[in-house]
Amino acid sequence: MKRPIWLKREHLRSIIFDDDTPAGRRFDIVLTIAIAVSLIILFIESSPSLPYWLKFSLGVLEGLLTVLFTIEYIARLYSAESRRAYALGGWGIIDLMAVLPPYLAFFLPGARYLLILRSIRFIRIFRIFRLFSFLNEGELLLQAIGRSFHKIAVYFLFVFVLVICLGTLMFIIESGQPDSAFRDIGTSIYWAITTLSTVGYGDITPATPVGRLLSSFIMLLGYTLIAVPGGIVTASFINTTNDPVRNGRCPRCDAKVRKGDKFCSQCGEKL
Amino acid sequence: MKRPIWLKREHLRSIIFDDDTPAGRRFDIVLTIAIAVSLIILFIESSPSLPYWLKFSLGVLEGLLTVLFTIEYIARLYSAESRRAYALGGWGIIDLMAVLPPYLAFFLPGARYLLILRSIRFIRIFRIFRLFSFLNEGELLLQAIGRSFHKIAVYFLFVFVLVICLGTLMFIIESGQPDSAFRDIGTSIYWAITTLSTVGYGDITPATPVGRLLSSFIMLLGYTLIAVPGGIVTASFINTTNDPVRNGRCPRCDAKVRKGDKFCSQCGEKL
Amino acid sequence: MKRPIWLKREHLRSIIFDDDTPAGRRFDIVLTIAIAVSLIILFIESSPSLPYWLKFSLGVLEGLLTVLFTIEYIARLYSAESRRAYALGGWGIIDLMAVLPPYLAFFLPGARYLLILRSIRFIRIFRIFRLFSFLNEGELLLQAIGRSFHKIAVYFLFVFVLVICLGTLMFIIESGQPDSAFRDIGTSIYWAITTLSTVGYGDITPATPVGRLLSSFIMLLGYTLIAVPGGIVTASFINTTNDPVRNGRCPRCDAKVRKGDKFCSQCGEKL
Amino acid sequence: MKRPIWLKREHLRSIIFDDDTPAGRRFDIVLTIAIAVSLIILFIESSPSLPYWLKFSLGVLEGLLTVLFTIEYIARLYSAESRRAYALGGWGIIDLMAVLPPYLAFFLPGARYLLILRSIRFIRIFRIFRLFSFLNEGELLLQAIGRSFHKIAVYFLFVFVLVICLGTLMFIIESGQPDSAFRDIGTSIYWAITTLSTVGYGDITPATPVGRLLSSFIMLLGYTLIAVPGGIVTASFINTTNDPVRNGRCPRCDAKVRKGDKFCSQCGEKL
Repeated sequence: MKRPIWLKREHLRSIIFDDDTPAGRRFDIVLTIAIAVSLIILFIESSPSLPYWLKFSLGVLEGLLTVLFTIEYIARLYSAESRRAYALGGWGIIDLMAVLPPYLAFFLPGARYLLILRSIRFIRIFRIFRLFSFLNEGELLLQAIGRSFHKIAVYFLFVFVLVICLGTLMFIIESGQPDSAFRDIGTSIYWAITTLSTVGYGDITPATPVGRLLSSFIMLLGYTLIAVPGGIVTASFINTTNDPVRNGRCPRCDAKVRKGDKFCSQCGEKL
Repeated sequence: MKRPIWLKREHLRSIIFDDDTPAGRRFDIVLTIAIAVSLIILFIESSPSLPYWLKFSLGVLEGLLTVLFTIEYIARLYSAESRRAYALGGWGIIDLMAVLPPYLAFFLPGARYLLILRSIRFIRIFRIFRLFSFLNEGELLLQAIGRSFHKIAVYFLFVFVLVICLGTLMFIIESGQPDSAFRDIGTSIYWAITTLSTVGYGDITPATPVGRLLSSFIMLLGYTLIAVPGGIVTASFINTTNDPVRNGRCPRCDAKVRKGDKFCSQCGEKL
Repeated sequence: MKRPIWLKREHLRSIIFDDDTPAGRRFDIVLTIAIAVSLIILFIESSPSLPYWLKFSLGVLEGLLTVLFTIEYIARLYSAESRRAYALGGWGIIDLMAVLPPYLAFFLPGARYLLILRSIRFIRIFRIFRLFSFLNEGELLLQAIGRSFHKIAVYFLFVFVLVICLGTLMFIIESGQPDSAFRDIGTSIYWAITTLSTVGYGDITPATPVGRLLSSFIMLLGYTLIAVPGGIVTASFINTTNDPVRNGRCPRCDAKVRKGDKFCSQCGEKL
Repeated sequence: MKRPIWLKREHLRSIIFDDDTPAGRRFDIVLTIAIAVSLIILFIESSPSLPYWLKFSLGVLEGLLTVLFTIEYIARLYSAESRRAYALGGWGIIDLMAVLPPYLAFFLPGARYLLILRSIRFIRIFRIFRLFSFLNEGELLLQAIGRSFHKIAVYFLFVFVLVICLGTLMFIIESGQPDSAFRDIGTSIYWAITTLSTVGYGDITPATPVGRLLSSFIMLLGYTLIAVPGGIVTASFINTTNDPVRNGRCPRCDAKVRKGDKFCSQCGEKL
């Protein structure tokens, strides 16, 4: 604790990475506001008809924020306990992506819009409100969805094939009409997805009686199909709560298992 | 019971606050009709092309109803068992908000529309039909939703970040088109929310093949994402019924608990 | 069995009301086809631009079918085991409603469209395919929905008040715009229902940034709210299967109950 | 193993039908790409405004692919263990349908679009990634849906009758308007399905206040009805996991059953 430069680094670290010191909390709040401001600037700048003075001042403000975020990234990198772990870890990469776009934009004009990745940093908002239990909930949610990933993947392959067939059928039926919106099979498949997902923009709609009959059938099908992922996810959520392992049973062979067991002693199922 | 002025107050109270006396029921029915009439007046008055005589008579009728509601509020305040408790309680504030707007409108023309808050008083309709068990159900419903609030909050933060990214992506793809409806990032984010929630107005629709491909992806994503809050709420509903505490187990550590226990004796979880 | 006139009535009854004799099945099939034809005639006749000869022949065909259905109704009434029970029972009234409209149309031109009530008779289709177990399923479905009726009623009252408030708010925000589709509060409430239910016609859409922001909020709200009735109904379905009574427990006080019990011996709950 | 022609057939079979040899895997990958290319050609060709050179080269490429698929089908038929079983089995018919359309198109121009059936062959993609466990999930999914088929059939008959009645009612209300989109009852029923399924194209929308009131009612109804298939499927999914047979109980009469039992010893229910 006698080396002043190390002390400084530790002090910086407590401000940047901690959230239980007053300085750390203040830092997090300022950072979240800065991110929000930088996003709002991006939104306003995207508008085509801006007066010159506004465009100019927004540009200046954005430059300032970029400098600030750059300093912040360097400070983070400098003060991190393990610089390597930070730079290559998930948050380190997100932080870097929040800094780089304006620099990349010198070479690649479109890169500016990568700034939007700053929105991911909003997730830090939990740190301000100390809502870590929320993040646990989020993890449980992801687990429940992840556990039903296999079923959902199969389901979407089925929907994919269905949508290709229905789109083509609709193209055959409707494309004969003058001024039909079903111009090609690609558009028809886009229409089938719009209908099956119950979005229904209405930019492409059937005009023939047969087309409307088929549409009605697709809508009622979508009505039922929309229930399937819901059923999968809900069953997964309920199984998280009614966990058979918790009830002392192997979920596969129904044999009794003990609390600490990692594998079923009868069938080897991972618990 | 000998003080006549107190008796009068108690009599008034039984009419206004009770619902098991014939007078009290008649009062509730008249009040509900008066609220409905006052809302219908507001709806009709909002129409831009009204003949003068109708506008005038509606204005008179509304003035009359306002006087009536004012008298009712004063009578409630006068006859309430505890005036303070009524005036500061939930229903007292709602009743006041149903009276004030026309007076506020003298100073602030827009305040008239606060009249719409009268619709909240409709919830009293349960009193007419003596459907208190319905209100219990409502409370259970709110509890179930409240218990899953953490999960839904995390979920919406995720949707929020997703919608910002997808909206910007769509803006980059579509804004190059002539006469594109994707005018700025804000509009594009609005479109992403419209699509992801399967509302699909159709005022903004993609025109490029790449935009339609991304849209299709967003729709199918929305199709799956729409299942998540459903799963959360349903799991919560079912857990209300299959309450582990009822089954004599702590929901956290699975230790046995007794019926009257308020906390788990092993881990301190509130039951 | 010697009275020939009674025999005839019994014979007629076996044809009309039974579905396990060949004659009875043939009768049901012919009847279902006749209903379908009469509905299709009604659909075609509703079209505004029909050639005279088609209009005329459809009219003749409909007259014929009406005579047939009239004879059928008289035959049913004549051959029913208890004429009173049939005439006043659910199916008897539906059968009568399928016959009357064309006669009523002499006095009231609009009455013709009551013919559509013939579609209810389609439910008899189960008799043709002997799918009575399907009707049991339907009853279970209605029971599950009926059991959650209280919760859904409370929920809709809440949605009703919400929609009135949001519609008015949107009217205040949008009605200032030139050529705004939000003409009056009634239209705005209609829009709010369209949005909250994720239907999203797109005939009325917000044009101001503030209106779009509020719309986005309403859409995400609808996204969550749409989950609630699903949760209620699903919980009800699962409880039908995981019936606590079946598991030998009272659903209210959790006391043990015996199989034949109609009421819980501890708390008097109807099982 | 000495008959060279048989050896060749077995060798071919291992390439075409196996997926655990390097040659077999390479064959599957090439085939999947060929299918994808042939579908993309079909999509591009459906566009009405193609330059001649592109149309020509796509035609040549498609001809080539057709020859390839024909050779593949003959090779499959030749090398199959049991030619009869392959030719008449599910995959054999799908493979044939992927080959025939271009030949049929000589006689029947529309037959070309049957090419879309090639998309079904995409399901073979699981073979490439060796995701057979996914197919098991798919089977479980189909089982869960199949088990609730009775309930869903009853539900759709109810929706069918409801939609006919609501569509006609809407036609009566709206058709009086000048330029009403509710031209005939068929169109009105199509509108009712569009609304009830929450698709909401917006090509047909109510214009009268009464029509909008009824629409609002239909939307809120659809909002609730959309929950029913979800509830049915979800309950079915959960019952797959909380299988009563697994818990040692007959799902029908609740009598105890043993693990190996195929039928309940008390009521004969198939387990």
